[in-house]
Amino acid sequence: MLEKMQEIVEKIKQEKPLILNITNYVTMDFVANGLLSMGASPIMCKAEQEVEDLLKIAKSVVINLGTLDESFIHLCHHTCGIANQVKKPIILDPVGAGASRYRTNTALKILNDYQISIVRGNASEIMALSGLTSMTKGVDSTVDSDNAMEAAKLLSKKYDVAVTVSGKWDVIADGDRLSLCDRGSSLMPMVTGTGCLLSSIVGAFHSVENNRFDAAVAAIIFYGISGEMAAEKSAGPGTFKSEFLDALNSSYHQTYYEQN
Amino acid sequence: MLEKMQEIVEKIKQEKPLILNITNYVTMDFVANGLLSMGASPIMCKAEQEVEDLLKIAKSVVINLGTLDESFIHLCHHTCGIANQVKKPIILDPVGAGASRYRTNTALKILNDYQISIVRGNASEIMALSGLTSMTKGVDSTVDSDNAMEAAKLLSKKYDVAVTVSGKWDVIADGDRLSLCDRGSSLMPMVTGTGCLLSSIVGAFHSVENNRFDAAVAAIIFYGISGEMAAEKSAGPGTFKSEFLDALNSSYHQTYYEQN
Amino acid sequence: MLEKMQEIVEKIKQEKPLILNITNYVTMDFVANGLLSMGASPIMCKAEQEVEDLLKIAKSVVINLGTLDESFIHLCHHTCGIANQVKKPIILDPVGAGASRYRTNTALKILNDYQISIVRGNASEIMALSGLTSMTKGVDSTVDSDNAMEAAKLLSKKYDVAVTVSGKWDVIADGDRLSLCDRGSSLMPMVTGTGCLLSSIVGAFHSVENNRFDAAVAAIIFYGISGEMAAEKSAGPGTFKSEFLDALNSSYHQTYYEQN
Repeated sequence: MLEKMQEIVEKIKQEKPLILNITNYVTMDFVANGLLSMGASPIMCKAEQEVEDLLKIAKSVVINLGTLDESFIHLCHHTCGIANQVKKPIILDPVGAGASRYRTNTALKILNDYQISIVRGNASEIMALSGLTSMTKGVDSTVDSDNAMEAAKLLSKKYDVAVTVSGKWDVIADGDRLSLCDRGSSLMPMVTGTGCLLSSIVGAFHSVENNRFDAAVAAIIFYGISGEMAAEKSAGPGTFKSEFLDALNSSYHQTYYEQN
Repeated sequence: MLEKMQEIVEKIKQEKPLILNITNYVTMDFVANGLLSMGASPIMCKAEQEVEDLLKIAKSVVINLGTLDESFIHLCHHTCGIANQVKKPIILDPVGAGASRYRTNTALKILNDYQISIVRGNASEIMALSGLTSMTKGVDSTVDSDNAMEAAKLLSKKYDVAVTVSGKWDVIADGDRLSLCDRGSSLMPMVTGTGCLLSSIVGAFHSVENNRFDAAVAAIIFYGISGEMAAEKSAGPGTFKSEFLDALNSSYHQTYYEQN
Repeated sequence: MLEKMQEIVEKIKQEKPLILNITNYVTMDFVANGLLSMGASPIMCKAEQEVEDLLKIAKSVVINLGTLDESFIHLCHHTCGIANQVKKPIILDPVGAGASRYRTNTALKILNDYQISIVRGNASEIMALSGLTSMTKGVDSTVDSDNAMEAAKLLSKKYDVAVTVSGKWDVIADGDRLSLCDRGSSLMPMVTGTGCLLSSIVGAFHSVENNRFDAAVAAIIFYGISGEMAAEKSAGPGTFKSEFLDALNSSYHQTYYEQN
């Protein structure tokens, strides 16, 4: 999987795939910078009028529900509908599912109405979507991701999606395939948007690697290694954020992995 | 007050209170990162549909008028109404009051219609709200905060709120109580959102400390010390921003204070 | 031109001109921080109700189409109309022109309906607006800026605007005047908003220097030098962003230029 990761990262640097982000206002800047750092090309959009044009040149779409309202939800449906028609893969980040019924229901309706490729969330969010009891407290997770493995499998089978759950252990489930990953740094949840950016990077990986499970697993290993590389140079969440963007840009992930 | 500060900071790290931010689009990312760094849990919202659910789990609400429009104002009123009903404290940041009548009038109407706990602004903004002559030039302050002490007292008594004025000297007024604080760094006004983030951190402090005056004073000391700690490691406003987020996460505020 | 640059920079630090930004949600924070770092005073606005008040105190207006929708476009027209009446210069950043017809047409309509002072974009965007064939791929440029010189001249003459094209070589055209600049760093396009911030800094320069061509040329030299200064201290796009904000705040541009 490490070679697959390296192969995907190089392909992204070469092809600079355009990733269309229908995303929240809090972390747009960080998401755009993270995609640029690793070699992909981000575009953000908030108008239905240009979705069709943008989907002609974009390689994948990331739907992130971080700051939703009625017009945003309408834009999500419009975009998913066209993306399914023109067969561009969709990644869904159900930010805050479980924190309000509005968020939970919006995410479930999108899963119901369109073919989503990959759902990426934290344990609280995936638990809420799977129907298992959750104890969400806002947009940050309160459930150990070990407990969410069952939820990931359930959700994956119900909607035919790959599901990844971020946490101390990252879980990736797709039908009967399952993978765990324990890379990363405890500084990552102290920077807003590390989840959002991972969703967009999963989108970048899936834009050049057709197999959604392989794309998700490779992205999560890449992301975790980047976090570890950055943590070594950081004194806290502020300096970590800068170092993390540097690490995403680095070419030493494979070397670092083999040595640590 | 230093021990009170330390006690509040530790309580926040332990309880991770969820702070609901109805806030501007410019500094959302910085506000979220600052709250995460110091141990609180931020959530941003722009839809009335989920306010009631979110207020069940949030411990305080911050209303920040940095980029207002009609639908945003509507959301503010909706949120303040429910927050008063369910008795969650509201912090108001009247960004740019005095720069346009639209901003001034919006802030005054909120003060009139709801019970606000704490107003935090710069001198220009507090002067504009108090009715004293101001010379606002946009969202940055042009009045020395010494001159705004009178305005803070006036505003506090008129609307039964604690009022804090940021500036070279920070002023905190609540009825007959008054406190001044001269901590901080001249780099702070060179980073956008340092005012907004302080308002949200005041919200975090007030979420675990019922006395609004004590909460505001402790937050302002904590914030000023963080600024000083960061300035020592910074070469300009860009590196300061990263160092400041690190400082908010640090556990050495009391030690630093006693030594400086 | 180096002395002109220095003169403008000092004037900005002294006068702290208020720059009104009608701009996108992705890079608002970076734009505000960049303007603050170099001494200008940013304000962002999204409501027609306050445009007239804000234009009384603002010295120039920057219109940035990065995340447009119908209500945003309406706000742009409203603002440009008043700005032309009260004779405040307008800078237009046609982000993503060529990526969707919606963006291209919006930018062209603004150029048609109002007197714009300066247009700043990358080569793809300026090509798209000039009507020459482009190969835009999102918001990042894919055309060498050498090829865009012709487009800049065309656009400048057609709409009586100064046109600047960012790229490996920066082009500034205004009628028969033409200037090239090769300063800067390859890290700049790896940080989202470096184009947006340059547009706003061009706005700050034009707010204290009436000659639009001179203002644009000086701003681009200043910006390029800042990029070089920052790159020397950076290990990647993340640390570069912090160092770049520091460099904008520095007073050594002239000295650096003369030594490099």
